[in-house]
Amino acid sequence: MMTEDLKEELVRLRRDIHMHPELGFQEHRTAGLVEGYLRELGIRTWRIGATGVVGEIDNGGERRIALRADMDALPIQEENPVPYASRNPGVMHACGHDAHTAMLLVAAKVLSGMEFEGKLRFIFQPAEEGLNGALEMIKGGALEGVDAIVGLHVWSQLPTGTFAIGDGPVMAAVDRFRISVRGNGGHGASPHETRDPVVCASHIVMALQTIVARNVDPLKSAVVTVGRISGGTAFNVIPDVVEMEGTVRTFEDEVHELVERRVKEIAGEVSSGLGCRAEVEYEHLNRATVNDPRLATIAREVASKIGRVTEEQRNMGGEDFSEYARLVPGVFAFLGVRNEEKGIVHPHHSPRFDVDEEALPLGVQFEVSMALRLLEEGF
Amino acid sequence: MMTEDLKEELVRLRRDIHMHPELGFQEHRTAGLVEGYLRELGIRTWRIGATGVVGEIDNGGERRIALRADMDALPIQEENPVPYASRNPGVMHACGHDAHTAMLLVAAKVLSGMEFEGKLRFIFQPAEEGLNGALEMIKGGALEGVDAIVGLHVWSQLPTGTFAIGDGPVMAAVDRFRISVRGNGGHGASPHETRDPVVCASHIVMALQTIVARNVDPLKSAVVTVGRISGGTAFNVIPDVVEMEGTVRTFEDEVHELVERRVKEIAGEVSSGLGCRAEVEYEHLNRATVNDPRLATIAREVASKIGRVTEEQRNMGGEDFSEYARLVPGVFAFLGVRNEEKGIVHPHHSPRFDVDEEALPLGVQFEVSMALRLLEEGF
Amino acid sequence: MMTEDLKEELVRLRRDIHMHPELGFQEHRTAGLVEGYLRELGIRTWRIGATGVVGEIDNGGERRIALRADMDALPIQEENPVPYASRNPGVMHACGHDAHTAMLLVAAKVLSGMEFEGKLRFIFQPAEEGLNGALEMIKGGALEGVDAIVGLHVWSQLPTGTFAIGDGPVMAAVDRFRISVRGNGGHGASPHETRDPVVCASHIVMALQTIVARNVDPLKSAVVTVGRISGGTAFNVIPDVVEMEGTVRTFEDEVHELVERRVKEIAGEVSSGLGCRAEVEYEHLNRATVNDPRLATIAREVASKIGRVTEEQRNMGGEDFSEYARLVPGVFAFLGVRNEEKGIVHPHHSPRFDVDEEALPLGVQFEVSMALRLLEEGF
Amino acid sequence: MMTEDLKEELVRLRRDIHMHPELGFQEHRTAGLVEGYLRELGIRTWRIGATGVVGEIDNGGERRIALRADMDALPIQEENPVPYASRNPGVMHACGHDAHTAMLLVAAKVLSGMEFEGKLRFIFQPAEEGLNGALEMIKGGALEGVDAIVGLHVWSQLPTGTFAIGDGPVMAAVDRFRISVRGNGGHGASPHETRDPVVCASHIVMALQTIVARNVDPLKSAVVTVGRISGGTAFNVIPDVVEMEGTVRTFEDEVHELVERRVKEIAGEVSSGLGCRAEVEYEHLNRATVNDPRLATIAREVASKIGRVTEEQRNMGGEDFSEYARLVPGVFAFLGVRNEEKGIVHPHHSPRFDVDEEALPLGVQFEVSMALRLLEEGF
Repeated sequence: MMTEDLKEELVRLRRDIHMHPELGFQEHRTAGLVEGYLRELGIRTWRIGATGVVGEIDNGGERRIALRADMDALPIQEENPVPYASRNPGVMHACGHDAHTAMLLVAAKVLSGMEFEGKLRFIFQPAEEGLNGALEMIKGGALEGVDAIVGLHVWSQLPTGTFAIGDGPVMAAVDRFRISVRGNGGHGASPHETRDPVVCASHIVMALQTIVARNVDPLKSAVVTVGRISGGTAFNVIPDVVEMEGTVRTFEDEVHELVERRVKEIAGEVSSGLGCRAEVEYEHLNRATVNDPRLATIAREVASKIGRVTEEQRNMGGEDFSEYARLVPGVFAFLGVRNEEKGIVHPHHSPRFDVDEEALPLGVQFEVSMALRLLEEGF
Repeated sequence: MMTEDLKEELVRLRRDIHMHPELGFQEHRTAGLVEGYLRELGIRTWRIGATGVVGEIDNGGERRIALRADMDALPIQEENPVPYASRNPGVMHACGHDAHTAMLLVAAKVLSGMEFEGKLRFIFQPAEEGLNGALEMIKGGALEGVDAIVGLHVWSQLPTGTFAIGDGPVMAAVDRFRISVRGNGGHGASPHETRDPVVCASHIVMALQTIVARNVDPLKSAVVTVGRISGGTAFNVIPDVVEMEGTVRTFEDEVHELVERRVKEIAGEVSSGLGCRAEVEYEHLNRATVNDPRLATIAREVASKIGRVTEEQRNMGGEDFSEYARLVPGVFAFLGVRNEEKGIVHPHHSPRFDVDEEALPLGVQFEVSMALRLLEEGF
Repeated sequence: MMTEDLKEELVRLRRDIHMHPELGFQEHRTAGLVEGYLRELGIRTWRIGATGVVGEIDNGGERRIALRADMDALPIQEENPVPYASRNPGVMHACGHDAHTAMLLVAAKVLSGMEFEGKLRFIFQPAEEGLNGALEMIKGGALEGVDAIVGLHVWSQLPTGTFAIGDGPVMAAVDRFRISVRGNGGHGASPHETRDPVVCASHIVMALQTIVARNVDPLKSAVVTVGRISGGTAFNVIPDVVEMEGTVRTFEDEVHELVERRVKEIAGEVSSGLGCRAEVEYEHLNRATVNDPRLATIAREVASKIGRVTEEQRNMGGEDFSEYARLVPGVFAFLGVRNEEKGIVHPHHSPRFDVDEEALPLGVQFEVSMALRLLEEGF
Repeated sequence: MMTEDLKEELVRLRRDIHMHPELGFQEHRTAGLVEGYLRELGIRTWRIGATGVVGEIDNGGERRIALRADMDALPIQEENPVPYASRNPGVMHACGHDAHTAMLLVAAKVLSGMEFEGKLRFIFQPAEEGLNGALEMIKGGALEGVDAIVGLHVWSQLPTGTFAIGDGPVMAAVDRFRISVRGNGGHGASPHETRDPVVCASHIVMALQTIVARNVDPLKSAVVTVGRISGGTAFNVIPDVVEMEGTVRTFEDEVHELVERRVKEIAGEVSSGLGCRAEVEYEHLNRATVNDPRLATIAREVASKIGRVTEEQRNMGGEDFSEYARLVPGVFAFLGVRNEEKGIVHPHHSPRFDVDEEALPLGVQFEVSMALRLLEEGF
């Protein structure tokens, strides 16, 4: 399907973007590159927000299928000794969005040269990393008229040549909570004149363990992590406040609700039992990314003609593709980019993260095939 | 003050009572013996309840001083290989009430042969061990018209020849609590369908530790002990309920109230945070035994003419002498009965507990001297 | 496949066995019934132990396929107001083994009337409920020469007409642990002279929660339940020992090993930190029941011609079919027997448990079809 | 004993020092003032370290009695609207060392004008607040040849006109501990790949509560406070390390040793049970300040001729006078400086702390009388 020239262009594009990483909502250069490339192909484009780009090929017909890539990079200093390493100090494409963008551009090129009936929309979104750029795109109309959406994520734990496509939830809902345990500080030698928030916070941490251990169905998945705890400045002074921050990861809505409710109950009532008062801020950062089972079945069929399709893949990480897939049927596939021989083994968000570029044409094929299959046969 | 004959009588009386121990409110033989002995001396007596005995010498005058002994034994099988060992299987004078009764009888004999102005009341109460016989005596009028009361307790940790007399609280307030943690049982493989009271009870036990560690003034004393915990019958079934029983010991009223309040708060709110419900029964078994400082000063002076007076002695045990001392000025003294050479070293409530009978005449002298001193000089 | 007569016979058999339930290793009447029925069909049988029965049809050929049923009942008093209710007070077929046995007998009858090449073995085992009768059968040679084994379990949570057949682990490994926390008892008012095992046990319960909450991969399943805790007899005495019993449920071997190791580490080291000593007894009651993926695929194909095949079904209960499936490829299928309209909705081990007898012929068909398919086509 | 002129001089001195507070080991102005004043009186002086000053009157005789004052201030911004408020921003005599120094200077003046046999040493030490200046003075020879030492501390909780002088320990041993809980950090969504030090630290805090609650004799005093806890920087990252700092307060050596041992055991073994590793640094900042009973009796007699002597006073604060009193018999008395009418009620170390200057002549009288009494009569 792809000429050697096109494969070279794909790598060139990916490396260009890799060398010029931009943080969320600041993807000005990247958005310009995407926009120019699509226009060059004769594809109509428009912006959503400052850095979101949408392109559309409208060949008539009823169906409109969307393909989505994300464009933002991470605040990480690259440590890879490669010629295409980041030129932008402290910023790096350590999660493969450079590859996502390049693959979708080349897929658009391939598709723009083919004949088909239907509408294809290419969504290049900003700010996937913690800023929920997807929601901004949706608010800006990116999903209007769309019947189904396809996303693809390079995956460092899968070898090149492999696709992983699961049914149902494949990435977790991500919450952030902050618990401020307010006691009443005082001299460390006079605990009886205080309400000790250090002891209270410790009790809360203990009790939070029972959510996963006791409250959640053992056949379901959840994580409750306190990542930061901080209170007091002196060894001999009981502080007024201990602050904790943490994250909750879940797949199913009922588990999500259960865990949120239990975090709040535990913080509130255990602290009250210990004579303190807890304030809980609880934010939903990402919803769970849930694959439509019919689309997932189709995606596995499509992928099985390109590479190996492994057993189901789920992980507790978050992804704002979830926002699209809440509104229209969606499928989010993982593309293997690990290559032990080449030493491409570092995990996502590592300063040594890289992708095996041999895998990129497979991703383009998957996107092209999915687009045509869904337009032609529906689902 | 005491003839050899009287000392022999003292020992004979003590051994007689020791051989025939009776549990609380069942001191029929002992009460009969006491009553007969007092009447023999020409002392007027009357009963309070079935087994309480009061005697009074009324030589006119304004003041009325009470001396008190307790008569009940414990449900313990004696293990002492002595000829005067308990004849009553499973019942034993393992706390020295036999000595208390014998000493007060002989003190009454000595005093009945002396001239003095005033009224002396001898209170022989039942059921000191956990049944609060003192309260029954008070309800029956034992304290009516009494200006001050003196109690004496043999003490296995002090050597013969020693008195210990403190100011303020000398024995603890004793509370009993029962916490029933009600969850919702179920299969051990399905914790999410239950509310696990085992985990909740464990949290409560943890949180109870903070009362003494954090809430009570470190310069004051308190104990919170969970002595019994029990829940569940099968390894693979989560029970509905876990029961805990425990005791609280305190000296000062404000600490007493604080600890009771905290036990209830912790049980209530921590269990609520863990999704269970705690029912707390909280009983006051004994109040703190608080010595009147003026009486204690007099008692130390009196005792210092008989033996050695050690530094203040307090312990976290309970004593229903406290009931009298709440209503009229009282002093509760400890009489050393330990004798390492004789092997009389076992603690109270041990099946090997015994008293050094050499100490008993000192106790009689103390009671006699206190009675006369308080009648003559007031306080 | 089945005549009405045969369906009636199937129900008659099930009800006969239901009326005469027998506890594990005491299935004398049931074993006799099975043996007689098989011999009547001309099937060779032999016993393993007192109550295990094996039958075999040997039509030559290379392959030998086993079908397995379990025969024991539970110590439960039946509360169903049905004419075929248990005649044996306090004993009841509350887990459907009556249906398992009846289905396999009728399947043997159907198969004995058919022509096929190969060997079919019918394993009727005793004592599945907690006594690991499967292991006794294996020790007695029940699996010798067997190439694959098929098991079927009626399932109260699935409606009649449904099969649930998963890949990999479908029922959990079941462990039992007993932790004896040894401290040093004493008077409740003198905690400093003791080593308090109640406080220590509570710490251990807390720390055990971290195994599932922190140590086990959130994408995997595990349960750690303390079902029984017991220590102390008096409110004011700190006991010497607190005993806890509990269960661990896992699917994968590495999770199994991890949890066992962590239970022991936590009990050992946390108790040491709290000044006590923990003795841990840890027993493996059941291994995880793991379906061979090839057999599971075949079973789903077979079942899909008989009824509806639902998504994967796993549960944290235990099953000694696992013992067979550790040694030869096996598949364990769940057969829906729930019928809301008939009020057949009570869970396994309930005194109201029943099975929708309409489902039983489907189970026979599944067993017959699996036997033939595996003999004919292999796997 | 004191003329009005001398009382005015006393106040003038105190205010001068109050206006020019200096932190520990930086008391250059104060030391110069002290030195000049003593020399003016004809008293021989010498320095120990940069800012320690010793003066001595040697009238022959055998006995040598030392009186001690401390000179350093605290890093606190004074908030008192008084004309003599601190001129040194951020530094304040908020613990009364200005008064201590002024009183001892005036006592030296009074004593230098009297006739007596014996040697009097005046020790003006630096750095009492947490830096153990006492130890530096002792190393420099300040205690050489000294038979007994007397210290005096103004006390904001006692009213003017009151002295509090206890037997045995009157101020606590102060320890500082730092516990570094080392786990193994990682992504908050993957707890199973980490060893979570937040959970472990919480367990340690819980277990530390049992030291005071269970291990220490309830009739004795101890405090274990964790004043600072800190770990992690991001809500979704499990940190490598959690650090805690705290303080231990005890009176008796055996309690001191017990608590230190238990802190180390708990940190070590509980963390090990939770899969982490704890490093404990444990420092002894101050020993308990223990009054010699004979000196205390004398001091109460002496004080009772000057003001009211209250019941025993103990507190869990620390004081490096303890260092002197470990080596020679010592007594440390508290001088009431509270005056509700004047609004002088703020606690030590408050930016509003002040002393009722009416009390200062009483302190001088106490020091003069103690010096003469101990020289004349011995002890």
